Amino acid sequence: MTSEIAPPPRLLMGPGPITCDPRVLRAMGTQLVGQYDPFMTATMNETMALYRGVFATANEQTFVVDGTARAGIEAALVSLLEPGDRVLVPVFGRFGHLLTEIASRCGAEVHTVEVPWGQAVPPEMVEEAIVRVRPKLVACVQGDTSTTICQPLDDIGRICREQGVLLYVDCTASLGGNPFETDAWGVSVVTAGLQKCLGGPSGAAPISVSDEAAALIRSRKRVEAGIRDARDDDEDDVRTGSVIASNYFDLAMVMDYWGPRRLNHHTEATSMLYAARECARLLLEEGVENVVARHRLHGDAMAAGLAATGLALFGDQTHKMTNVVAVEIPERLGAAGGDAVRTRLLEDYGIEIGTSFGPLHGRVWRVGTMGYNARKDAVLVTLAALEQALRTAGVPVPSGEGTAAALAVYARAAA
Amino acid sequence: MTSEIAPPPRLLMGPGPITCDPRVLRAMGTQLVGQYDPFMTATMNETMALYRGVFATANEQTFVVDGTARAGIEAALVSLLEPGDRVLVPVFGRFGHLLTEIASRCGAEVHTVEVPWGQAVPPEMVEEAIVRVRPKLVACVQGDTSTTICQPLDDIGRICREQGVLLYVDCTASLGGNPFETDAWGVSVVTAGLQKCLGGPSGAAPISVSDEAAALIRSRKRVEAGIRDARDDDEDDVRTGSVIASNYFDLAMVMDYWGPRRLNHHTEATSMLYAARECARLLLEEGVENVVARHRLHGDAMAAGLAATGLALFGDQTHKMTNVVAVEIPERLGAAGGDAVRTRLLEDYGIEIGTSFGPLHGRVWRVGTMGYNARKDAVLVTLAALEQALRTAGVPVPSGEGTAAALAVYARAAA
Repeated sequence: MTSEIAPPPRLLMGPGPITCDPRVLRAMGTQLVGQYDPFMTATMNETMALYRGVFATANEQTFVVDGTARAGIEAALVSLLEPGDRVLVPVFGRFGHLLTEIASRCGAEVHTVEVPWGQAVPPEMVEEAIVRVRPKLVACVQGDTSTTICQPLDDIGRICREQGVLLYVDCTASLGGNPFETDAWGVSVVTAGLQKCLGGPSGAAPISVSDEAAALIRSRKRVEAGIRDARDDDEDDVRTGSVIASNYFDLAMVMDYWGPRRLNHHTEATSMLYAARECARLLLEEGVENVVARHRLHGDAMAAGLAATGLALFGDQTHKMTNVVAVEIPERLGAAGGDAVRTRLLEDYGIEIGTSFGPLHGRVWRVGTMGYNARKDAVLVTLAALEQALRTAGVPVPSGEGTAAALAVYARAAA
Repeated sequence: MTSEIAPPPRLLMGPGPITCDPRVLRAMGTQLVGQYDPFMTATMNETMALYRGVFATANEQTFVVDGTARAGIEAALVSLLEPGDRVLVPVFGRFGHLLTEIASRCGAEVHTVEVPWGQAVPPEMVEEAIVRVRPKLVACVQGDTSTTICQPLDDIGRICREQGVLLYVDCTASLGGNPFETDAWGVSVVTAGLQKCLGGPSGAAPISVSDEAAALIRSRKRVEAGIRDARDDDEDDVRTGSVIASNYFDLAMVMDYWGPRRLNHHTEATSMLYAARECARLLLEEGVENVVARHRLHGDAMAAGLAATGLALFGDQTHKMTNVVAVEIPERLGAAGGDAVRTRLLEDYGIEIGTSFGPLHGRVWRVGTMGYNARKDAVLVTLAALEQALRTAGVPVPSGEGTAAALAVYARAAA
C-alpha cells in the first residue's frame, strides 16, 4: 500500500505553479459544509466580492470556474463564441496559440496577428486587424510565461471599445504581479488561475464578466432537463443565440448557480473555493498595488542577479512580466546540459526553475518570483544555488556577483 | 475585510457532498511540488494504480480529470461522441437527464428509455432499444441520487458487449458504496467524483478508459499549436475521427499528459490530486468489499430507523443505493413544512439532510450515509434529531422507535 502523501521540500522558482502560501493550504484543510448551506452561499458571495477587488471591477458576474486556469479560458470562449463567429488573437507566445486552439474548437473563425516570441504586440497591429477582420471578439493573453512578455492592454481595450469589439483576456500568469484593470481597460471577460502570483494551487479559475458580455451569454441559455421549470420554457422562447456547446462551461447556467436563483449545476468544489477565497484575502490585505510593487522589486532583483551571473536576459525587457524572467541557457551547455543543471538544482538544492515550450524549449530557463515566493530570501537562495550549479556544470561564473547585484537592487529600493 | 474561513460544524447527511474525511483534508493541506517534479509524476502514477483498484480494472488509462464529477462526465462524452453519433441513455432520474443534455451538446443524436422516478430500468428495455436504435454508445448512471435507485449494470454490460456497443457509466454517487466492476461488466468508460462514498470534496473526477475506448479517442487526437512537434504532424495525417470539440476535456491530450510522453496540457490541480489519492488509499486500506458492506449496514440502519419513525420509504427498495435513502415528506407538512424541518435540523442540530429535484422536489427528503459519515453515531444522532424536529413541527412521531430500529439492525449484524 502507498504511504501518506509526503512530498520533498521544494522551493518552486519556475514559471508556476509555485510554492503555495501556507494560509491557503490551511484554508483547504478546512471542513466542508453542504452545497446550499447558508454559510456556503455566503462564502460564495464573499468570494465574488473579493474577486471584484482583485480584478478591479464592479462586475456583478465575478465568480470562480471549477477547474484549472485552462477551464476558465474555455468557459469564457465557448460561452462567448458561436460557431462561425470571427475572433482575433494577438499571438506572442505559447498561450496565444492556446487561445487560437480553444477558439477554433468552439467553431470560431480564428484570425491572428503574430510577433516573434520575446516581443509584445503593437496596439496598432491589433487595430489594423480589427478593421480588416471585423471580429466579434479579441482574445488576448496578458502575461505569456512562455516568453515572459506582458502585453500592454490599455490601448487594446480602448481600441476594442471604439470598434465595438468584445475583449477577452487570460491573465492567469500575470494577475497580482502586474497591474490589471478590468473596468478601466474595458475588458469584457477576464479569467485567471490561482497558481501564479496569487499563491494558491492550480484548480480554480476566477472569472469576471461584464454586464454586456453576461447579457450576450444569457441570450444563449438553456437550462438542462431534470431541473427546468416553467420560467425556463419561457426563456427558451426568447433565446436569440445558439445553445452553448458545453454544459460544464455554460456560463449562463453557472451564473444562475452563483446568482440568487442558486440553480443547481455542478457541485461546487468547496475546498478549491476556500483556496480561491484565501488567495484573494491575501492579495487584498496586502493591497493590490503593494503586491504588484513587491513582485516588481523581487523580479528586478532576480533579473539583475541573473544578468550579473553572466546569463543573457531573453526578450524585450521593457515589456517583461514582473514575476518571471527568462535567460538564455549558456551555449556551451546545450539543451541537454541546461536540463542537467535544472536537475542538479532540484535534486541537490531543492530548487525548481523551468525551461520553456516550442521554439524556446531548451534555449531558455525561466525563473519565477511570484506569490509566496516573491521574497528576498527566495531570490538570494536561488541565485546562490544557481551560481554553484553552473560552476559544477563547468560554466565559468563570477563569484558572488549574482547575489551582490540582487542585494544592490534591494539596497536602492530601501534608500 | 473578511475573516479566516471558519465554517459552522455540520454533520452532512444529505445526498452529498458529505463531511470530508479528516485524512483527506490533511492531504489537501500538503505543500505543492512542481508540475514535472519526479515526485509529482510518481504521485500521478500512484494515483492511477490506486484507482485501478477502486474501479476494479486493469485499464492503463485510469486517471483523474480536473473538475467536478460533471467535468468527468463531459470529458467522457465529448471525447467518445462525434456529432451525429447515436447514443442511448436509460433515464431513471435527474442525472440520466443530465447525460442526455451533455450528449446533445456534443451534437449526438440522443435516444432514451425512461422509467418512472423510483424504479430501475429493466435490461431487456435497454436491449430492445439498442436493437432498434443501433447506438454507438449506451450512457448510463449507476446510482441516481435524485431517486436513490441503483441501476444493475451487469446485464446491460453483457448486452452492450454482445451488440458491439460502447458503455459509459457515471458512478459518482454510488462508487464505493455499491459494487462496481469495470472489467467484469465490460464498461468502456467510467467516471466518478470524490464527494460521495469516497469521503472527499467535490473537484476531482476519477476516470477509467478501456483500451478499446482509448484507441477510439486517440483516433481523434490533435495536439495543440504551441507545443506540437513532428510526431504530431504525422499523427494528424492518420487521424480518422473528427477533432474533439473541447480542448480542456480532450482525453486524447489528457492521456498524453498522464502518460509517459507527459505532454503539457492543463496544470494539474495538485491539491485535488492529493485528495483523490487519499480517498483511494482510504478505500483500498479498508478494502472495497468491506467499504460496500459498511455502506450497506449503515444504509439499512438508517432506512429501518426512518421507517420506524413513521416515514414512508420512497422508490423500489430492491434497487436502492446503499448510501442514500429517500422518504416521503409527511403530507401534513407540505413542501414548505418539509423545508422548515430541514432548516431546523440544520440550524438547531447542525445536521443536513436533502430534498430532491424535478418531480420529487418538496416531496421527499434524502438522507445519506456515505463515506466518512457511514457510521453508527452519525446514523443514530440523525435519527434522534429528526424525531425531535418532526415533533417540534407538529408531526406525531413514536418516541425512540427510530433509533431502536437502527440499533436492532446493528445488533442483528453483530450477532
